[in-house]
Amino acid sequence: MTGGDPPISVLMAQAFARPELISLAAGFVDATSLPADLVRTACQRVMSDPRLAKTALQYGHTAGYAPLREAVIARLAEADGSTPIDALGRCLCTAGSNQLLQLVVEALLDEGDVVICAAPTYLVFLGTIASVGGVSWSVATDEQGIVPEALEEVLEEFRVRGELERVKAIYCVSYFDNPQGTSTSPDRRHRIMELASRYSTSGTIHVIDDLAYRDLRYDGPDSPSFAALDPSGERVIVAGTFSKSFAPGVRVGWGLLPRELAVRIERIKGNVDFGSPHLNQVLMHDLLTSGAHQVQVATLRDVYRSKRDAMLAALQTSFGGDPEVSWVRPDGGLYVWLTLPADVDAGPAGRLLDEAIARGVLYVPGQYAFAASGSPIRNHTIRLSFGVQTPDRITAGIAALATAVARVR
Amino acid sequence: MTGGDPPISVLMAQAFARPELISLAAGFVDATSLPADLVRTACQRVMSDPRLAKTALQYGHTAGYAPLREAVIARLAEADGSTPIDALGRCLCTAGSNQLLQLVVEALLDEGDVVICAAPTYLVFLGTIASVGGVSWSVATDEQGIVPEALEEVLEEFRVRGELERVKAIYCVSYFDNPQGTSTSPDRRHRIMELASRYSTSGTIHVIDDLAYRDLRYDGPDSPSFAALDPSGERVIVAGTFSKSFAPGVRVGWGLLPRELAVRIERIKGNVDFGSPHLNQVLMHDLLTSGAHQVQVATLRDVYRSKRDAMLAALQTSFGGDPEVSWVRPDGGLYVWLTLPADVDAGPAGRLLDEAIARGVLYVPGQYAFAASGSPIRNHTIRLSFGVQTPDRITAGIAALATAVARVR
Repeated sequence: MTGGDPPISVLMAQAFARPELISLAAGFVDATSLPADLVRTACQRVMSDPRLAKTALQYGHTAGYAPLREAVIARLAEADGSTPIDALGRCLCTAGSNQLLQLVVEALLDEGDVVICAAPTYLVFLGTIASVGGVSWSVATDEQGIVPEALEEVLEEFRVRGELERVKAIYCVSYFDNPQGTSTSPDRRHRIMELASRYSTSGTIHVIDDLAYRDLRYDGPDSPSFAALDPSGERVIVAGTFSKSFAPGVRVGWGLLPRELAVRIERIKGNVDFGSPHLNQVLMHDLLTSGAHQVQVATLRDVYRSKRDAMLAALQTSFGGDPEVSWVRPDGGLYVWLTLPADVDAGPAGRLLDEAIARGVLYVPGQYAFAASGSPIRNHTIRLSFGVQTPDRITAGIAALATAVARVR
Repeated sequence: MTGGDPPISVLMAQAFARPELISLAAGFVDATSLPADLVRTACQRVMSDPRLAKTALQYGHTAGYAPLREAVIARLAEADGSTPIDALGRCLCTAGSNQLLQLVVEALLDEGDVVICAAPTYLVFLGTIASVGGVSWSVATDEQGIVPEALEEVLEEFRVRGELERVKAIYCVSYFDNPQGTSTSPDRRHRIMELASRYSTSGTIHVIDDLAYRDLRYDGPDSPSFAALDPSGERVIVAGTFSKSFAPGVRVGWGLLPRELAVRIERIKGNVDFGSPHLNQVLMHDLLTSGAHQVQVATLRDVYRSKRDAMLAALQTSFGGDPEVSWVRPDGGLYVWLTLPADVDAGPAGRLLDEAIARGVLYVPGQYAFAASGSPIRNHTIRLSFGVQTPDRITAGIAALATAVARVR
């Protein structure tokens, strides 16, 4: 997560330069539970089967390894309780879901075209949109995701200005959002789809459903994704990845796209890399079909649940009862979103970040997760990640943060 | 090698639809010598070392795994007999060298900017240049590579028209060229560098040195690459890959770039994928430092040498003594370039391709390897690959091709 985004690069440089810092900033994953044994035995199986070994070590198709595409579609269909139409021909494997998202904006956006996203949203994607000359436009959210009335208002503004054709997509990290940890409720999904459809008068407004954290659920039952509400397969773009639910280093992502868009993206990807590393795709297929992935997901759920609980308990200890401080309890994912008193500037221009670093804790200023246009940027917010640190260090980090907050108030 | 390039996609579809065809078309690699055992033991070593396993399975830096970058630079320095200046900070790992080439044109070219390349050249790169709105401009070649006088003439034309600033790079596959199998001689390297320097009056004209096939040498001694002639490190862009010398499915490429360009490309790559899969990079580092890569290179040299010899012998049998047919004997790589009588159209519009397919053999029409601008396209040329087929099938394929040629003359 370096390089692409200057603010994050600066934070990463801080973290690297001072390894004693308790970083609650990076969206990295727990290092102690990485699935070394599962990968070793999968590689053993694949490389000991002459036919599979040959497939894994040779070039593949640009769209990706067909058995892996079948497996991810089958998982999606099972989780959603409905099978997407004609899915194999619309499914692509990519280098993480980020390459998929990058290819999507490259295929979809011309200079000045708009992606509507939550306020706040996945900050790296804001940079991706900007990198192709696109504009990200944020709309208000609550604990159920994007607020339909706010979305309708923005769409209506574009309609009145005669600029609806600029709006190409609505982007949702719909399970345990990065950065808020909230999920889009079933009712909201229906209403967002209805609005996208109603305002698609000058071209399709797509709904991009980023499922990066769907597998990392610690409480409650799963519910269907946007794909289940798109019987024709012409509106929803699904972005999936095994980076969070298995291991970032394997770097296998996938997408399910409207057919015409899938064809265009396959062509772009053909010019970039002819397809992602086949070895990783064949390994990931083995890991999925052997049950190893499920084993790892179960492990991660336990690991992260206790980290989340440590963070929530520490927040309660430090900030509980303070009417000016609030946070969202996430049912999954890797993040807790903290809102501080409105006069605390948590950004690089404010005093809190320096105070926090001086006390040994690093966070992501919430302002980086807001689009420049649309819903106002809230400088008094913070993204906290519980992915990397141990529960003890999470507790210590939150205590240090609370001291820093107390000093700047 | 599908998707990105329509002509190649059509050929690939032909090959897939009729698996009994002897394809001398695809630049795929020998399937029987893929290094399954070497990859299995490397994965075993990496995943059994807790520190390495953690590194391999976690996110890495966008620029790539530092020990791998050090290892590729050390190999380059050893092969060239000179160490590139300040190399680690200028070296990036990518998903094959194709991603590197794609990032280079994205960073270097604006609409209408020019890359000068050999006539003929690597056909996929022609598509890559076109994909960012660039123009490929070809110059004449002989058995020593690009002809300096022809290069000077083109540069002079751009200078006279006041358009030198459009020329951003000269592209050379300088060892066992795809498609001609020729290498750029040491004298030519000096003269190309001198011309690039002399005409860099309106901005740097880079020399892109594509080393894809350097390790696949079957005869004669190695000689230094363009990097050895660039002491300041400000002109040459090196593109390397382990796809041909080890295994395409591992898909690890690398680049050594002028510093300012390396910074820009790392930023672009940060937006695309945050860095290529770390697992593959850590594995590739193990394979290089354990000696496994050298073992595989030695194996491949033996395998491909005998395939090349089979193809050359078959060509001699079928076409030897025919004054209108000629071919280049390659000292390495995967290709033989065949020139037919001038009135034989080997392209999709001519009769030969259909005749050849009817007789069970597939080739790449040479015309696809010529840029639209510059040196004239020669329709009576063919690229033959000896990478995939067995020596027996190569012999049978060339015999079938000879029959097809005889019928259309």
